[in-house]
Parts: sequence; C-alpha cells; structure tokens
Amino acid sequence: MKVHEQFRAGQTVTLVDSDAQRKPLSSGDNAADKKQVEQLASQIADLQNLLYAEHKRKLLVILQGMDTSGKDGTVKGVFGKIDPLGIQTVAFKAPTQQEKDHDFLWRIHSRVPGKGELVIFNRSHYEDVVITRVHDWIDDAERLRRYAHIRDFERLLVETGTVVLKFFLHISKDEQKNRLEARLADPEKHWKFDMQDIEERKSWDAYQRLYTQAILETDTDHAPWYVIPADSKTHRNLAIAHIVLQTMQDMQLAYPPENPALASIKIQ
Amino acid sequence: MKVHEQFRAGQTVTLVDSDAQRKPLSSGDNAADKKQVEQLASQIADLQNLLYAEHKRKLLVILQGMDTSGKDGTVKGVFGKIDPLGIQTVAFKAPTQQEKDHDFLWRIHSRVPGKGELVIFNRSHYEDVVITRVHDWIDDAERLRRYAHIRDFERLLVETGTVVLKFFLHISKDEQKNRLEARLADPEKHWKFDMQDIEERKSWDAYQRLYTQAILETDTDHAPWYVIPADSKTHRNLAIAHIVLQTMQDMQLAYPPENPALASIKIQ
Repeated sequence: MKVHEQFRAGQTVTLVDSDAQRKPLSSGDNAADKKQVEQLASQIADLQNLLYAEHKRKLLVILQGMDTSGKDGTVKGVFGKIDPLGIQTVAFKAPTQQEKDHDFLWRIHSRVPGKGELVIFNRSHYEDVVITRVHDWIDDAERLRRYAHIRDFERLLVETGTVVLKFFLHISKDEQKNRLEARLADPEKHWKFDMQDIEERKSWDAYQRLYTQAILETDTDHAPWYVIPADSKTHRNLAIAHIVLQTMQDMQLAYPPENPALASIKIQ
Repeated sequence: MKVHEQFRAGQTVTLVDSDAQRKPLSSGDNAADKKQVEQLASQIADLQNLLYAEHKRKLLVILQGMDTSGKDGTVKGVFGKIDPLGIQTVAFKAPTQQEKDHDFLWRIHSRVPGKGELVIFNRSHYEDVVITRVHDWIDDAERLRRYAHIRDFERLLVETGTVVLKFFLHISKDEQKNRLEARLADPEKHWKFDMQDIEERKSWDAYQRLYTQAILETDTDHAPWYVIPADSKTHRNLAIAHIVLQTMQDMQLAYPPENPALASIKIQ
C-alpha cells in the first residue's frame, strides 16, 4: 500500500476528534520528522521544476479545514521551497457582490492552473457547500445540486490535464481552542484573530457533519480527498508532503526531449 | 549615500557594455557574496511577513532586461525565501487578442498588488514601449504618449499605497552570447531556448537605445529605475537584494497594534 492510501477518505470517513491526533507516519522523534518534511519539501521543489519545464500538465492542490487548522502553515512547510515563479496561492475570501452574481464556480474556474503551473487553493469551492449550509444561505436541495456541479467541474479539470489533490486538515475541537487562545495570548498575533472564528466555533458539530458529507460526496478516483490528522503540525506537513511527492512522482514528469536541430545554431 | 543611490538611473544613464560587468558591492569573494545574498533574502522574507500583517501598503517589483539577463534567476535568488502565501509572480507574455483590444495598461492594471501583497512583474508594460517600437508596431508619437501614460499610471499606484521598484538587468552583448550558447549546449535546457531570442538579438543596438530612452523618460522619484550590472549573477542578486531590503526597511513596516479588547475573550 502506498503511503497515501491510508489517508484516502474512501467511503467510511467520519470526522472524529480522536482521529485528529493520529501520527501514523511519525518516527516518534519530532526533530527527525521535521527534518524529513524539509527533505520532502526539497524533492517537491525539484519536481515542480520538471512540471514547469514539461509545460503539459497542471497541478491543483486544495486545502480545506476549520479555522486554525493549519492551511497557511501547510503552504509554508510543504511548498515553501518552490521557486516563486512556479507556484501560485489563491486565498478565497467571502465572495464579492460581483462574484455572488455568478455561479459559485465562476471565480474558482478563473484561478485554476494552466500548463506547467502549480496552484494552491487556500479555501475553495468547498466553502460553498459547507459554510453556506451552516448559515442556511442555501437549502439541502441546492447543497446536493452543488455536489454534482463540483464533481462535474473537477472531472473537466482532470480530463483536460489537471491533477487535483484535496486535503482536509482535521483538527480536534480542543486543539482549535488551544490555537485560538495562543493567538489571544500573543499581541503580535492579534492581527490574525477574527471574532468571526469564535462565532463559527459555536457551529462546530454542524461543520463536522457537513464536511463529512461534502467529502463523501466528492471523493472520486480522479479527484481524491485525503483527511489529514492535523493536531500535530509536523505530522500534518509530513503526511501532506508524502502525498504530494508521491503524486508528483507518479506523474513521471520529465524534461521535454532535446531538440537536435539546435546543435547547428551559431550565435552571432 | 545609501547603497541604492549608485544604481539609480538618474538623468545620465546610457547602457554601455562595460557597465554590465561592474561589481561595486562585491567583497571580491564570490562564495562570501553568495552567502550575503542568502542573508539578505532571509531578511526580505521576514519583512514580507510584516507587509502582509500590516495589510496597508503594497509592493510592486518590475524586472526588465534583454533575453537571458536573469529575470528568473533574480526571482529565485532574491525572493525565493518568501512564504508562497506572500508573493505573486506575473510573467507577461505576448498579448492575447483580447488584451490587444484594450489599452496596453489594461492587463497590467489587473495584476498589481493589493494591500499587504508583494507582486513581481517578470516583464511588464515596458515591453510595450520597447519591443513594439523595435518592430515598428507603434510610431514615435505613440511611444512618447505611452511614456506619459506610464508615468501617470505609476503615480496612481504610488498615491494609492504602492511602493514601485523598477530594475533593468543590464547584461553585455557578449554575456548574452555566452548564455544562449550555454542553453544550446545543455540538452536539459533546450526547452528554455526560443528561436525568437536569436532574432531579437539582431536588434541589440535598437533595444539598448530604446531601453535607455524608456528608463530616462519614466525614472521618477516615486517610481525609480535602478540599472543593475548583471553579467555576474551573484552580484546582480546582491545589488537587487540590497535595494529591495533597504526599500522595505525604509517603509518602517510593523505589526498592527495589539487589541486590548481581546484580553477578556474566553474560548468555549
């Protein structure tokens, strides 16, 4: 079994607090785990060079999770060694009026990767089937229609050369409490604190239920979901780095073939 | 005199081959220079965190230069340590039909940084006053009008909170020959080779003349041009890193003030 398989959502996922603490890939030594994350991140950076040079396929990584689940930390820890030319991150915020005047995939579609590009979505269209339902902005019929729209949209991306990886960073309710308290305790982190996070936390159970459903309904072989235990930041990065690296290795990326015609060119 | 001043275009710039080889900031030891670039790049990455946290001002870095002048290498060497969340690079290519149907600043304006953002333009609107004139796609009257449009546009950006830095990476014609030949000699670099580069090289003198004029006409105190000797890759990075760091230090970036109201919040 490849490393990824154990995190695949499959058909049995339910988001349980205790699962957030699992560390199946850990060596037991946090310093050694961190060092391994660094090594994997370097290998990912090397393979991104090939993705760019190949200029054929596209890689889209979607990060979802509750507030403080570590989406930003994942970007830095797993993708931080990539040449800035080779990576774009898109942080989707609450939609603007113009975005709301379009279908929910309109603004998403405009930011997907082109040939040779690696794009990270920090939040995504999955907010539009979860937060929207928690707040009763859409009903269940609309929610179910959106799952189908998402499956179709992601199949379009995959059939036109995009590899799609979806990660749910799964933290426990207690760990979120710790992280919110840490932000409050550190004046330098006050700018990161949003009162809305406290409000959303009150709907914790509804979020867990709706994420579970969203994951089950949209976990496909072409665009798989991985549920990553994320109470440990190091192990979260370790698991995601493993899966990203394995995926890029499976893509068998390579430099384009050399061009023999170039041998005879003389530069004046 | 601050380090940057000696590279400011001022009113006297003319692009002379021998100037491309200057290394005024070098310690004389290439390994030591490289190490210093690494240190400066780390400091730039730290200050970018403050720019992001402050969420008030914006930083736009424009890179121009002849083919092989090292624009990509600058992005990696000077900005490569920045958290991917905090940097966007935009590589402007030949305009699409839709872009051509708009004014030349339309596609540029859509990609400028927002609050807290650092954006690197790898090529820019300056192509539209240089390459367009070399090929006679515009006449001199239009070229002069565009300088004025550029000055006005950049003043808009600056007066609305953007710091604009413009770098011309100045290589000699001999050094370009070396670099093109190196691409031809290495099959792994064939994908980087573009026959068009050979064509453009034939107009070397026209390019040097038009870049000189463009720089003189658009070097302003609010959006200065720096002409960077770029035959040495290490020294190029050293000079640019110095200027970027000095500029960010002068911005006096700081975390937003702490919020005393947060002290009384209890997380349930």
